[in-house]
Amino acid sequence: MNIALDEKKVSDAVIPRILHYLRVIQQLEKSDKMTISSEELSKIANVSAFQIRKDLANFGKFGQPGTGYDISNLKKYLLDIIGSKEMCNLGLVGVGNLGSALLNYKGFEEEGLKFVAAFDKDEGKVGKVCGNVIVEHSNNLKESIKKNDVHIGIIAVSVDNAQQVADKLIEAGIFSILNFAPVVISVPKEITLRDVDLSIELKALRYFSVNK
Amino acid sequence: MNIALDEKKVSDAVIPRILHYLRVIQQLEKSDKMTISSEELSKIANVSAFQIRKDLANFGKFGQPGTGYDISNLKKYLLDIIGSKEMCNLGLVGVGNLGSALLNYKGFEEEGLKFVAAFDKDEGKVGKVCGNVIVEHSNNLKESIKKNDVHIGIIAVSVDNAQQVADKLIEAGIFSILNFAPVVISVPKEITLRDVDLSIELKALRYFSVNK
Repeated sequence: MNIALDEKKVSDAVIPRILHYLRVIQQLEKSDKMTISSEELSKIANVSAFQIRKDLANFGKFGQPGTGYDISNLKKYLLDIIGSKEMCNLGLVGVGNLGSALLNYKGFEEEGLKFVAAFDKDEGKVGKVCGNVIVEHSNNLKESIKKNDVHIGIIAVSVDNAQQVADKLIEAGIFSILNFAPVVISVPKEITLRDVDLSIELKALRYFSVNK
Repeated sequence: MNIALDEKKVSDAVIPRILHYLRVIQQLEKSDKMTISSEELSKIANVSAFQIRKDLANFGKFGQPGTGYDISNLKKYLLDIIGSKEMCNLGLVGVGNLGSALLNYKGFEEEGLKFVAAFDKDEGKVGKVCGNVIVEHSNNLKESIKKNDVHIGIIAVSVDNAQQVADKLIEAGIFSILNFAPVVISVPKEITLRDVDLSIELKALRYFSVNK
């Protein structure tokens, strides 16, 4: 199968959905099913069949109208899109409640994601083991990020410190940032920033529950 | 200002973006700025100016082409869209690392979001205080969800238990669920389910960093 990514940039929203389809397909694989109709896939993934076809079409032709999807082929196709099976090194800044929970989460490694560094400015936390890493002082950030070959920087500090931490991560050579602080951070356009804003998720749910 | 929501359902993706614009505008409000051009707003929010106009257009006419946005009017407009200023009651299932971090997070209350109940099946956790709640046994879920008037159920249990917990929440009368377990849960169509899948966020970042 030849998956040629079009010259045009695929919209940022497509890739998380491709990963979501992969999650669905990997679950289906554990069942006895061999094929799945686009309607059924749409229902399980909670995404319209039109959207699924459109997303897949970004990466070339897949499937034939009316025949449904072959589960093992679709899995292979999605994995080819996502590419890289290499371990991805994560560095976290801010070892508070959320930061600790992330460092201790067992599920990342099997997904190819590994914490290799964690930082805090609180001397009381420096030197402590959290998950698989020893917490370092934030002053070491630049040096340690380079030494540990960190690919993705995770911001789990307070609102007031988030922009400054982002600046330091970028200065250390990081191009990809996941931000948990509920604040809008500004970054140069060559940096990819994604926000996980839990208040927004919850307020969106509240909106839907009221306006349904 | 008269914000009439069209008969047609607003796409599920619009509301989180509206909340994101509100976050940006509330930050801008703290500066001395009175107005903002659509290009500037687009740059700060990291969303195209076309998308912003299109999202706002779902809720009636706002702003005049070429004049930019009045910050305080836009804030009022966005707040009117989002509506409800009432406290929203949250119930959490699964008091592990992530669950505890959520219960202890101080930022939710100022956003109108309040934990009123938490559940775990581990007897060792039952009765402990976590944030503002006392952890109850999962066997009490149905009764406690009703008694405490929980609006949103949060799933922070393991992959293997997530579907069962979702079923129990729905049985208890919950219509809105935020799921942190990295698994695709199936729910009846009258239920609103949102997933926060951190592995997917991180893998999307990895994809973008490789394909940039």
